[in-house]
Amino acid sequence: MTQASDLPTIAFIGLGIMGGAMAGHLQAAGHLLHLSSRTRAKAASLIAAGGVWHDDAGEAAAAAEIVITMVGLPSDVEGLYLAPHGLIARARPGAVLIDMTTSTPSLAVRIAEAAAARGLAALDAPVSGGPQGAQSAKLSIMVGGTEDAFTRVLPVLQRMGTNIVRQGGPGAGQHCKMSNQVVIAGTITGVAEGLAYARRAGLDTERVLQAIGTGAAGSFQLTVNGAAMLRGDFAPGFMIEHFIKDMTIALAEAEARGLDLPGLRTALAQYRRLAEAGMAREGTQALAKAYGA
Amino acid sequence: MTQASDLPTIAFIGLGIMGGAMAGHLQAAGHLLHLSSRTRAKAASLIAAGGVWHDDAGEAAAAAEIVITMVGLPSDVEGLYLAPHGLIARARPGAVLIDMTTSTPSLAVRIAEAAAARGLAALDAPVSGGPQGAQSAKLSIMVGGTEDAFTRVLPVLQRMGTNIVRQGGPGAGQHCKMSNQVVIAGTITGVAEGLAYARRAGLDTERVLQAIGTGAAGSFQLTVNGAAMLRGDFAPGFMIEHFIKDMTIALAEAEARGLDLPGLRTALAQYRRLAEAGMAREGTQALAKAYGA
Repeated sequence: MTQASDLPTIAFIGLGIMGGAMAGHLQAAGHLLHLSSRTRAKAASLIAAGGVWHDDAGEAAAAAEIVITMVGLPSDVEGLYLAPHGLIARARPGAVLIDMTTSTPSLAVRIAEAAAARGLAALDAPVSGGPQGAQSAKLSIMVGGTEDAFTRVLPVLQRMGTNIVRQGGPGAGQHCKMSNQVVIAGTITGVAEGLAYARRAGLDTERVLQAIGTGAAGSFQLTVNGAAMLRGDFAPGFMIEHFIKDMTIALAEAEARGLDLPGLRTALAQYRRLAEAGMAREGTQALAKAYGA
Repeated sequence: MTQASDLPTIAFIGLGIMGGAMAGHLQAAGHLLHLSSRTRAKAASLIAAGGVWHDDAGEAAAAAEIVITMVGLPSDVEGLYLAPHGLIARARPGAVLIDMTTSTPSLAVRIAEAAAARGLAALDAPVSGGPQGAQSAKLSIMVGGTEDAFTRVLPVLQRMGTNIVRQGGPGAGQHCKMSNQVVIAGTITGVAEGLAYARRAGLDTERVLQAIGTGAAGSFQLTVNGAAMLRGDFAPGFMIEHFIKDMTIALAEAEARGLDLPGLRTALAQYRRLAEAGMAREGTQALAKAYGA
């Protein structure tokens, strides 16, 4: 058993499917957790194991050396960090704040600046790997912020992920995540269209997957989401509404730099149509339905 | 040493980068080859090793039990097979003809029908894996045609590939290859756009590749062509002009079935612009240039 007293106290805010699993690893490693989330019920097992509940996120932050947030939308992040009695206003001197939500790079920069003005360090550290990666502590973590703050919290991040790379200064973690999502948008479009083609041509789609899955068409998306499309399994690993959020951010950031991404625009338009048709909370593999699956 | 006399004699027509390597494996396995190609010089080493040259492809076919073609365009395939003195007219009774060119499914059906009318069997058997796959005899081979003909020539196909799947009747091999190309079109678009985003956001693109390459964004295209994009290496593994040919066929086949593939349309439009700008003979990874690389 690790001695809890040696380890920094952590405030963990946002205990959904991702955050709950990530906080669990930190607690198991011996960190004392201060917890806050929209729904207290989601913290029950963490509280039972010694975590301290706070109705107010700022209060949780004030009790910890490291503050981690894993919430929903950039507007949630903005409210949490920058409100008058928010995390930056309440955090202890010398604390490091880590936003692991996928959010906007420009907000990450604003948060880092506001934090620095109060003598705090803030990192943006979005993840990929989904619920499975969170549960198995094998997330990829893409970090933006100072080298110093990164080094200080790396042992904590290593409890949650395996591929942890500092991408640059504030916002660079979010930009890297956006790059990741843009790649996925094109890839899953190719997967959905290629399998739709095969089905419409009258082929045995399972046999097609066997033939093309290991070669130049091969991808994580084809292996995992392509197979789910063929099974008709549209339960969310990663929800369409979250993917739309990410793609919308990426498109705006690209446009702000004069970069046109027609493949991303195509994917986003397809997903928006699915969301409007009531599929916002299905998994991203439900893109197959845009092609008649 | 295999006894050549036990093995069927093979006519191999089309000795480019792919066909030359594939024919070499058959010769090395002990098959007597009858050779024909647009350029005799490309057959030199095969002739030196015992292959028999024919100026006329029909004459080569008339001398063999199995006829394999690996040429350029569907129009080349049509001319070879269906001309009055072409392969079907000249092939021996009982011969199996295998077109390994990526061509149109509908042409494959026409060829199979014309072959059957003369008591011959024809298979469509396009490949994926590129020059490397051809050289290492590790091609994926997607086959359409009768089970009987497939079974008869499987030992020959196994000399050239490792993942050999019969997809259905005549044309099914070509349809499977089209499905493969549609998946790749979306995937490489995602790769080019995601890396362009990262570069434009000021990230270290090599470090981004390290962070995203093994997770949900991972693919053969990201690992191989993404890395080539970052190196600025646009030499062809697979040429843009050939990819345009394939995507054009796939789009027409999809449209004929009332299936809209906006991702494929986007990719094809990007590649056509590159071809018009003089990049038709660069590798498909030159798609990066459409995004300012």
